[in-house]
Amino acid sequence: MPDPLAWLDDHRDAQLETLFELLRIPSVANVRAEPHPCRTAAEWLAAHCGSLGLDARILETAGQPVVFAEGGPDDAPTLLIYGHYDVQPAAPLDPWQTDPFEPVVRDGAIVARGANDDKGQLFTHLMALEACAAAGGLPVRVKLLLEGEEEVGSPTLEPFVAEHAELLAADAAVISDSEFWSRAHPSLTYALRGLAYFELRLRALRADVHSGVNGGAAPNPIHALAGMIAAMHDADGRITLEGFYDDVRPLAEAERQAWASLNFDADAYARDLGAGALNAGERGYSVLERRWARPTLDCNGIVGGYTEPGSKTIIPAEASAKVSMRLVSDQDPDRVAESFRRFVEQHTPEGMVAAVDTHATARPVMLPTDSPAMRAGRRAVADAFDAEPVLIRCGASVPVTELFQRLLDIDAVLMGFGLPDDNIHSPNERFELNQLFRGARACAAFYRALPAGG
Amino acid sequence: MPDPLAWLDDHRDAQLETLFELLRIPSVANVRAEPHPCRTAAEWLAAHCGSLGLDARILETAGQPVVFAEGGPDDAPTLLIYGHYDVQPAAPLDPWQTDPFEPVVRDGAIVARGANDDKGQLFTHLMALEACAAAGGLPVRVKLLLEGEEEVGSPTLEPFVAEHAELLAADAAVISDSEFWSRAHPSLTYALRGLAYFELRLRALRADVHSGVNGGAAPNPIHALAGMIAAMHDADGRITLEGFYDDVRPLAEAERQAWASLNFDADAYARDLGAGALNAGERGYSVLERRWARPTLDCNGIVGGYTEPGSKTIIPAEASAKVSMRLVSDQDPDRVAESFRRFVEQHTPEGMVAAVDTHATARPVMLPTDSPAMRAGRRAVADAFDAEPVLIRCGASVPVTELFQRLLDIDAVLMGFGLPDDNIHSPNERFELNQLFRGARACAAFYRALPAGG
Repeated sequence: MPDPLAWLDDHRDAQLETLFELLRIPSVANVRAEPHPCRTAAEWLAAHCGSLGLDARILETAGQPVVFAEGGPDDAPTLLIYGHYDVQPAAPLDPWQTDPFEPVVRDGAIVARGANDDKGQLFTHLMALEACAAAGGLPVRVKLLLEGEEEVGSPTLEPFVAEHAELLAADAAVISDSEFWSRAHPSLTYALRGLAYFELRLRALRADVHSGVNGGAAPNPIHALAGMIAAMHDADGRITLEGFYDDVRPLAEAERQAWASLNFDADAYARDLGAGALNAGERGYSVLERRWARPTLDCNGIVGGYTEPGSKTIIPAEASAKVSMRLVSDQDPDRVAESFRRFVEQHTPEGMVAAVDTHATARPVMLPTDSPAMRAGRRAVADAFDAEPVLIRCGASVPVTELFQRLLDIDAVLMGFGLPDDNIHSPNERFELNQLFRGARACAAFYRALPAGG
Repeated sequence: MPDPLAWLDDHRDAQLETLFELLRIPSVANVRAEPHPCRTAAEWLAAHCGSLGLDARILETAGQPVVFAEGGPDDAPTLLIYGHYDVQPAAPLDPWQTDPFEPVVRDGAIVARGANDDKGQLFTHLMALEACAAAGGLPVRVKLLLEGEEEVGSPTLEPFVAEHAELLAADAAVISDSEFWSRAHPSLTYALRGLAYFELRLRALRADVHSGVNGGAAPNPIHALAGMIAAMHDADGRITLEGFYDDVRPLAEAERQAWASLNFDADAYARDLGAGALNAGERGYSVLERRWARPTLDCNGIVGGYTEPGSKTIIPAEASAKVSMRLVSDQDPDRVAESFRRFVEQHTPEGMVAAVDTHATARPVMLPTDSPAMRAGRRAVADAFDAEPVLIRCGASVPVTELFQRLLDIDAVLMGFGLPDDNIHSPNERFELNQLFRGARACAAFYRALPAGG
């Protein structure tokens, strides 16, 4: 009977080829296409899980389908494994050095949309499961929940998890959709920010009009929108929505001290971003605190009027912006949404019509750092990467984490294998082969280290 | 020998068919296409002018070609007729009820991009010239200058006019590219605003980045751009660029009184725009004064980040806006450009990189209201439309007007036949048949009324 780790070493090329098949499916959740690439990806995953000996099926949601797969001994602890097969849109395409949906290996890393987030990371589990099966069988009972709408805020996952609570019941959960503190410092993540994502549209005129004939009289919705966006922060970088900070839990002194020992290199981080300054967020907080423990507001997109090359002399009829907030414990996305709508009402100039749509909401989540499952995760990562992991927060959102906690009473272990410069959500997304294969070893080690009862 | 006006009445259908040929050419100056539709339109016009017995040719510029045509008796006064064959882009296409480049007649008006601005209006002259020729010959010597870049600010026309000053020499000039005060009140225009049109780009990051992982640290160029646009006006609607108002000539009391007698119906105007309020521009000035006699600044377009349907959680690397100003006498576009660049420098946040491109500049122009040519124009319009024309300004820019004044020493007569609700620069642009055919009668009457020496 081979050791699963040895099996993994012997099957790298074949595993890579298999992962590439998944990466070639452009499974962006919010595109319109028939057949939808998310269904293609779900079917591919269900078939692949089946080939690993798991009992796999596709479960429908109000949005993209969920792949559910189950297997392993009935008398072992049950581990719920989450991943998402949808990816961020590839746009803008120009900066990509290769086709985002034709994976290549360059400089020791897979380059493709989803290489890391989250197809590459969820594949570490599929590799580990295959290795365990080849090495004599799974050490735990596993349930896989593979979602297709994480990148659009998991809008249909809450009712799905609530409805399937029994099916999803488990002793522990693991989510590999986060990143290491650095190449030299593995980590596990114990807190995520929440999300409240809105689209704001302002209409001022029946149609675009001539800016010469009407300029000075016709109201300009871009100016109004710009004024509203500018008014969302004060001079100290604080968000001006009424009551926005009411429920923000201050950073614990112990966490502040722990973070200081991480020796965060802000200059290196700024260089990696290509940013001349890290001056977003609130004055008076460190960069890490602003990214991890403070809520933020960012305009993710804006459009209005003439945007093609050259000039067109119009005052546009309307303009719109996508505005999202990252929330921290104990902020409530619904309260934030109310406050945002009030802000928009109060700042809409006389005569204009504003509309607000909610694209996504997710609650922030804090996880215990000393549970048995977390300890098993730390040991597994330490073994696979030959370094003791540090504990970090992450400013991003993985909505399912909070759903598992609230609806299934499971504190997931956030054991992700990305690296900070992997360009997730950006052009040339990558995932280093070393992280992929060692990640799979960590998954296999985690399964074996998992105690009964989580 | 038939009367030219009778000839016009007898040839309406054929003339309309001919105009439709021109309207079908999508001659937008700033598109990339081969062969370029502007050249197609220029060739069509040169051929059509040739068919009217004029000596027509295409003259090259640094941009789109100019059509020059000449004819009529050597011993008569010389009239320079200007028109432009380029049109505004048709976008946004959704609101168009019919194909913008497939003209139709609906509710007594031609509907097409360029139906009014300026193909329909320049065609009034081509019809009048054909009618005069059919009725025994032209009463004046004419020189036609038909431009292909007016809608992009005539960027190459100044050197062209300077270089061809001798060729273009004339006793008077007429430009039909403006509109009536109202359906019931014909008008001639005696002042136009100038233009300074810029594109402002802000770059903050190497690439789009994840707004969760980096939000609170990574600078957001949309926020910075919104702040800059918001800062371009103060709370009283005044433009904050340094020295911007230094050269603004106050409105003469006589003009203010003359405008009061126009009985401008602001409510009807607001209804036509579909505007809930006419609150753009400076406080303390009337709507007409803000549209005609005060300078303005409008953001004509803005784009940054994710603008497709749904959500994408990024902080964008860059954002850009098109910002244009309408200038009044005696503002200088070059001084305004300097001030705009200084404003951008002063308002660019630390760590971001700003770039400013100039798309177009045009100086404002004021014309005498009592010249012999202007008097001839007033009589011609009164005859053709059975109503005495009023004298108005227009907030738009027709850059050639100021070039004729400055480089050729000719004060053009601005005898345009559009109506305020013709949707120029907007979807469903239109030109009423009554304005087209009576406009042609006014042109023919103007040629015959023109005194020697302008």
